[in-house]
Amino acid sequence: MVLTDLNAAVCAYVTSLPHQGNKLWGGRFVGDTDPIMEKFNASIAYDQRMWDADIRGSKAYVKGLEKAKLVTTDEMNQILQGLDQISEEWSKGVFVIKPGDEDIHTANERRLKELIGAPAGKLHTGRSRNDQVVTDMMLWLRDAISTLTENALQLVSTMVERCVVHVTLVFLFPHARRLNPCLSHAVALSRDVERLQEIKKRVNVLPLGSGAIAGTPLDIDRELLRQVEFLFWASLCLTHLSKMAEDLMLYSTKEFSFITLSDAYSTGSSLMPQKKNADSLELIRSKAGRVFGRCAGFMMTLKGLPSTYNKDLQEDKEAMFDCYDTVHAVLQVTNGVMSTLQINQSVMEAALSPDMLATDLAYYLVRKGMPFREAHGVSGKAVFTAESKNVTLNQLTVEDLSAVSPLFESDVSSVWDYRSSVEQYSAPGGTAKSSVAAQVEYLRTWLKKQAQ
Amino acid sequence: MVLTDLNAAVCAYVTSLPHQGNKLWGGRFVGDTDPIMEKFNASIAYDQRMWDADIRGSKAYVKGLEKAKLVTTDEMNQILQGLDQISEEWSKGVFVIKPGDEDIHTANERRLKELIGAPAGKLHTGRSRNDQVVTDMMLWLRDAISTLTENALQLVSTMVERCVVHVTLVFLFPHARRLNPCLSHAVALSRDVERLQEIKKRVNVLPLGSGAIAGTPLDIDRELLRQVEFLFWASLCLTHLSKMAEDLMLYSTKEFSFITLSDAYSTGSSLMPQKKNADSLELIRSKAGRVFGRCAGFMMTLKGLPSTYNKDLQEDKEAMFDCYDTVHAVLQVTNGVMSTLQINQSVMEAALSPDMLATDLAYYLVRKGMPFREAHGVSGKAVFTAESKNVTLNQLTVEDLSAVSPLFESDVSSVWDYRSSVEQYSAPGGTAKSSVAAQVEYLRTWLKKQAQ
Amino acid sequence: MVLTDLNAAVCAYVTSLPHQGNKLWGGRFVGDTDPIMEKFNASIAYDQRMWDADIRGSKAYVKGLEKAKLVTTDEMNQILQGLDQISEEWSKGVFVIKPGDEDIHTANERRLKELIGAPAGKLHTGRSRNDQVVTDMMLWLRDAISTLTENALQLVSTMVERCVVHVTLVFLFPHARRLNPCLSHAVALSRDVERLQEIKKRVNVLPLGSGAIAGTPLDIDRELLRQVEFLFWASLCLTHLSKMAEDLMLYSTKEFSFITLSDAYSTGSSLMPQKKNADSLELIRSKAGRVFGRCAGFMMTLKGLPSTYNKDLQEDKEAMFDCYDTVHAVLQVTNGVMSTLQINQSVMEAALSPDMLATDLAYYLVRKGMPFREAHGVSGKAVFTAESKNVTLNQLTVEDLSAVSPLFESDVSSVWDYRSSVEQYSAPGGTAKSSVAAQVEYLRTWLKKQAQ
Amino acid sequence: MVLTDLNAAVCAYVTSLPHQGNKLWGGRFVGDTDPIMEKFNASIAYDQRMWDADIRGSKAYVKGLEKAKLVTTDEMNQILQGLDQISEEWSKGVFVIKPGDEDIHTANERRLKELIGAPAGKLHTGRSRNDQVVTDMMLWLRDAISTLTENALQLVSTMVERCVVHVTLVFLFPHARRLNPCLSHAVALSRDVERLQEIKKRVNVLPLGSGAIAGTPLDIDRELLRQVEFLFWASLCLTHLSKMAEDLMLYSTKEFSFITLSDAYSTGSSLMPQKKNADSLELIRSKAGRVFGRCAGFMMTLKGLPSTYNKDLQEDKEAMFDCYDTVHAVLQVTNGVMSTLQINQSVMEAALSPDMLATDLAYYLVRKGMPFREAHGVSGKAVFTAESKNVTLNQLTVEDLSAVSPLFESDVSSVWDYRSSVEQYSAPGGTAKSSVAAQVEYLRTWLKKQAQ
Repeated sequence: MVLTDLNAAVCAYVTSLPHQGNKLWGGRFVGDTDPIMEKFNASIAYDQRMWDADIRGSKAYVKGLEKAKLVTTDEMNQILQGLDQISEEWSKGVFVIKPGDEDIHTANERRLKELIGAPAGKLHTGRSRNDQVVTDMMLWLRDAISTLTENALQLVSTMVERCVVHVTLVFLFPHARRLNPCLSHAVALSRDVERLQEIKKRVNVLPLGSGAIAGTPLDIDRELLRQVEFLFWASLCLTHLSKMAEDLMLYSTKEFSFITLSDAYSTGSSLMPQKKNADSLELIRSKAGRVFGRCAGFMMTLKGLPSTYNKDLQEDKEAMFDCYDTVHAVLQVTNGVMSTLQINQSVMEAALSPDMLATDLAYYLVRKGMPFREAHGVSGKAVFTAESKNVTLNQLTVEDLSAVSPLFESDVSSVWDYRSSVEQYSAPGGTAKSSVAAQVEYLRTWLKKQAQ
Repeated sequence: MVLTDLNAAVCAYVTSLPHQGNKLWGGRFVGDTDPIMEKFNASIAYDQRMWDADIRGSKAYVKGLEKAKLVTTDEMNQILQGLDQISEEWSKGVFVIKPGDEDIHTANERRLKELIGAPAGKLHTGRSRNDQVVTDMMLWLRDAISTLTENALQLVSTMVERCVVHVTLVFLFPHARRLNPCLSHAVALSRDVERLQEIKKRVNVLPLGSGAIAGTPLDIDRELLRQVEFLFWASLCLTHLSKMAEDLMLYSTKEFSFITLSDAYSTGSSLMPQKKNADSLELIRSKAGRVFGRCAGFMMTLKGLPSTYNKDLQEDKEAMFDCYDTVHAVLQVTNGVMSTLQINQSVMEAALSPDMLATDLAYYLVRKGMPFREAHGVSGKAVFTAESKNVTLNQLTVEDLSAVSPLFESDVSSVWDYRSSVEQYSAPGGTAKSSVAAQVEYLRTWLKKQAQ
Repeated sequence: MVLTDLNAAVCAYVTSLPHQGNKLWGGRFVGDTDPIMEKFNASIAYDQRMWDADIRGSKAYVKGLEKAKLVTTDEMNQILQGLDQISEEWSKGVFVIKPGDEDIHTANERRLKELIGAPAGKLHTGRSRNDQVVTDMMLWLRDAISTLTENALQLVSTMVERCVVHVTLVFLFPHARRLNPCLSHAVALSRDVERLQEIKKRVNVLPLGSGAIAGTPLDIDRELLRQVEFLFWASLCLTHLSKMAEDLMLYSTKEFSFITLSDAYSTGSSLMPQKKNADSLELIRSKAGRVFGRCAGFMMTLKGLPSTYNKDLQEDKEAMFDCYDTVHAVLQVTNGVMSTLQINQSVMEAALSPDMLATDLAYYLVRKGMPFREAHGVSGKAVFTAESKNVTLNQLTVEDLSAVSPLFESDVSSVWDYRSSVEQYSAPGGTAKSSVAAQVEYLRTWLKKQAQ
Repeated sequence: MVLTDLNAAVCAYVTSLPHQGNKLWGGRFVGDTDPIMEKFNASIAYDQRMWDADIRGSKAYVKGLEKAKLVTTDEMNQILQGLDQISEEWSKGVFVIKPGDEDIHTANERRLKELIGAPAGKLHTGRSRNDQVVTDMMLWLRDAISTLTENALQLVSTMVERCVVHVTLVFLFPHARRLNPCLSHAVALSRDVERLQEIKKRVNVLPLGSGAIAGTPLDIDRELLRQVEFLFWASLCLTHLSKMAEDLMLYSTKEFSFITLSDAYSTGSSLMPQKKNADSLELIRSKAGRVFGRCAGFMMTLKGLPSTYNKDLQEDKEAMFDCYDTVHAVLQVTNGVMSTLQINQSVMEAALSPDMLATDLAYYLVRKGMPFREAHGVSGKAVFTAESKNVTLNQLTVEDLSAVSPLFESDVSSVWDYRSSVEQYSAPGGTAKSSVAAQVEYLRTWLKKQAQ
């Protein structure tokens, strides 16, 4: 690329605005701005949290400018020092937002000018405010994804380790058939992590840098897409956790009592001294709606928007921040809940009942040569007979059973063993102890890989 | 109702909680609470804006208690004075939130105890925290609705008055057929106001008061319903305004130039010095998504929740506040936009073109006895002939037209008059000046009625 | 209104289109239409279900035309007879849809022309297709609302009558505190009915009729609003029922066993012969999402649409039909479920446990002079003591209790009576039998009023 | 894996149900099923479209059974022939659905039994109905994705080829700044294709096969996730197309007239003979809402669902089918619209106006040494001066300009050249012809790669 091109390209992206009064685009306007409109238009209230991303982006950018000889080494150093000082002000909570600082970029730029004067203006050569907004957002999102990944990995790890001590008899409950509920949620979450990593990979392609100076216009649509993907990811992840919370809430009712929540994650009732509310689980469950609402709202905002940047797109930031904060808190609280809940193995065992073995009763007949379809029906009739006689299934006599099918013999008693019922399924993903162990091992290995 | 019943009823709703440490429900708990969980659980960050509603509710409530002889006149006076002092602290911005003030109710109650000691505890006789949350929310919502109603009435009024000076020729544009676009949006908004008044009527039935002391439990579901209705109302109202914003954006493009936005409601482009962005309109349009997202999110949160109060419902408040703030700002900004936009009558007139009178050409034939269906086809052919000859419709000669239908004669020239085309429709809702005037009059009368 | 006005007004709304080939708007077009585009554009596949509304609307309309002397009495009679014949063809399922019948209006009009020839063309004097679409939709919606109202009233009635035999002891369960769950859902549904009636009132103002001939343009936005309101109503109603389904599902788990679903509303498991799935409740719960999705989708479609009729609005019909069909089925199935479910009173009674009376234990102390806040804490400590000693709350000795508070004396034994606990709350909305009876009476009276 | 394990695993998944009457799970039930409930429960009305996937899945499955020696070679052949015959019946439209065929699996199985008798029952050894539902859905989805990929590639190709003849002057319009609008939508769509391919990769991991017989339970959650991903993909893709439709609609208004839609994708107005409605674009725009509504609805259905299969999940199918059909039609219609629209280059050129070069005027000053921020302001003042004098920007004299900045000299006239303005940006993604050509080349290469 020849220099002329470079210059032209630089010009194309030069969008820094003259400070005439506080309005950056004020050269031409004669009317006054409505103060409500100004507030409506301003984003500093929420985008200031990107101060760090904004400064890091500017630091990288000025180095690119120096390489492209658009600022001198000395100017670069002044700018870098100024930015460092602003960073310190934010860290210490002493940065003062002034009227006219309508967004974080304007605020930092205004402060830089106060600190180092004229050279501050050169920082924005070849960079539009939209470019800067998008860069900040992406830098911020990259950090956000890292944090959420750590939170989620911690939670997967907790789930796996809690699972190890988990009795597998729970598999006999129709509610928990076939998949270990704890492992199942851990697996779902591990996939959420993988998906988040995919988004991260795409976010890692930074929009700005020395390359951008050479003129590749930012593809704002692509960045938007990533944000939409993140909002949807958050919805999906919290929908998974809402399902897990529902499971745990059911198991923690007095009637089930399979688990007991730690006091740290319960609150008492203001009316009933004996009652512990599973507030943490209810809050976890509730957040799926909140986050999906943000995603739905932004999708509706996008619908039918014509091309190029529209102010409508400003809606993205609050949605992003709120979804991040929500998922961040939910993952941590869920981790706390899972770490501390007590599993009441004896209650689960006491809750086992012979009718859960009706399928095994059908298999007994299958082993004696009856097709499964027929065996299923016969077993169903046995259940009905037991109910009619008001006894449990295993209390039916061989005579009772023979009346349903002549294949039943005295060896039917071998059916009534919960543990051997569970141990039958030793294939991958099955309910046998060996099978559960294999699943645990798989997840532990996966976790180790992620940690690298 | 006998005294025993009253007492029993009072007891039933007595839910004030002992202060043992900062946790109101702490009598029984031995574990510690996770600090993230505490933050997750706390609502003080956003519900403190209901401080005034909370204090007003408590003042009304203590008067009921005194009437029911549950507090003495002296105690009532102490409580009222304490509450007034807290109110003053909030007004002046000097109220200090302390750790443990997890919501506005707890904060105000804690402060009351500090100020007046023991009698503070009596304020909450017969009132649960959920009752208080709901009462506060409803008092707040009542005020919110009043404010939004005023905003909306102001906007309807602005629209109507701007409309009076509006040339009716706009009706000829296919985009604006049949309904004056300005009046049409004013009418839509007037209906939004009526609907909001319906919600207000229901909100006005206050949940608390001396009646409540006698034991009528709050119907939390009913209150929720009102909130959901408000969220939906906000979505519907902003969807209307998104449509109006879209109309105005189209009319304000350089290519249309029917209207010019005031500088106060435009911003400049950071790239293009000549460009004014219709930022205000884009922001107005964008908010429909945001508000609907809140409604969608809360509906999803509600879905499948079992009965009685769940912590999930805490999600209602932020949604309510955000929707109120958004609608509040949008109505004010829209009012500003409408008050200050310039209508470019001459541009509109210049944009009129004879093909807009093709329907009138069909009517000409109908008046000569041709059925409309046939006349429509003939007129369409005339349009096609004009396009083929590359002339405007009114430049077709009588010969050209006769080739399409022998009914065309030299008096067809009377068709080519825009004003008489518009004046034909003098029925209610029509486009004649008299008809527009009647619509304006209707809205003015409606506005007067609302003001009462 | 003078005749000239009338004629002008008629002309303004004459939009019937000449049949040149099958395309109604074909006079001017020379290109061919893409067959996929035709299918995309056509609505006959789903709007044919409005055939009856379409014919009824046309019959009313032609009578108006005759009064306005726009058709002769003889022409009117021909048209009415033709329409009756078409109606019969639809009823008998012999109406044949032909290529080119892109919507129900075109189909019926095409058939009328085949049956009675020329006079058919006069039916559409002064009526645009959009007017007709909206009229049909509103006539259809009016019927739909009537049917749903009947379904909902039947369900309220069933709930109330089932409630009468419902033991009130359920109130002691923390899940069901304070509001009779069955009555509570009945009350929520009664409000849904009231809200639906409000929509119906607005729908009853018919868009067409002799008045319309005089030129009042249809306010399409107003009609849209009603449709949106209906979609939202459907979402709200099914969200209520999703909550009820969740309650019932919990109560029907083996662990609760408070209720048993009838076989007619359960299905068996293909795997487990002993298991009954509460499929009906799961289906009821699932439909809230479906219906809300329709509402959300249509709101998004509306967002940012410019004024006047856009083809986008065609999306309304499938949404309306699907929501109606879904609510219609859900209400009927719910009615079946509620009519036939078995309430296991003895199981509920067996599930009562003394700790549910912890609140009563606090009241005992209040009656001895202790403030409730303190009493709540003391009762909580008693619960904790019982748990530590692994006994039930009522098994604590007076000595045990005295260690917590000296106010406990031997008369504390009177607390351990579930029935008197429930009977304490005799105020309106309370849990005493008399109170429940009053609520039932209220709903029965309300039902009678609705039936009129 | 030893044989015992295999048998146990097989048993675990044997879920085929005995035909006792028409209800597959009827062995135990004594009550009757409500016919409305049956209809509510049945999915045959919409899932019959998966007949081919169902048969293909069964054919693969029976081969696995034969390998595992669970059916004989002879039985396998009988089953394969029976399935082929059923397939033929569906193809020819002669398959008769009978009462009791509640879903496509039941229908095909019932028919197989009629055709080949007893061996039919062996087909379902080791396979639950849920397994089969999921397999069918995935096979169907795989085909659906292939079709949509082809549609989308065709559309990208059309966009690229239309773009080649597209004048680049459009870049000067503020609406179309910086990114060629046509290329920009092509790029967005190419990314949608890439994303769809990612989903396809995951779908290609088939749930069933001989492996499954060995006992790996289907991970229903994983399959659900894919479906949710597909629904979201459809929403995102149609949101993109809604934006493109909005652009085209603006450009096709009479006031812009940059493009003219083909008659094949327009419809006439029933009222205005001269008017062509951009119905195709309005329909395209409208579908984003519909599809997102489906996604939103299913997400709400999923929220808070406890683990294991719930009947709620039946909602997935109609959502999937509707989203597929909608995207399928939209892509084809959009392709038609893009192929046939006429680009009015001369109108675009005539619409160029000198104020579009205000940015170039600023660059002129930058080249003379003025910092861009200052130059932007100066150029803005020049625009304001021109407006005040009611002349175009290039009609300002050098004197006029000098009054704003002394840097303006006579060589400023070189600025007023539209083509050289566009040609300045020759960097990748720029607006120079060479740059557009490079983008086109990139997309052509990408298309070739996809075709492989």
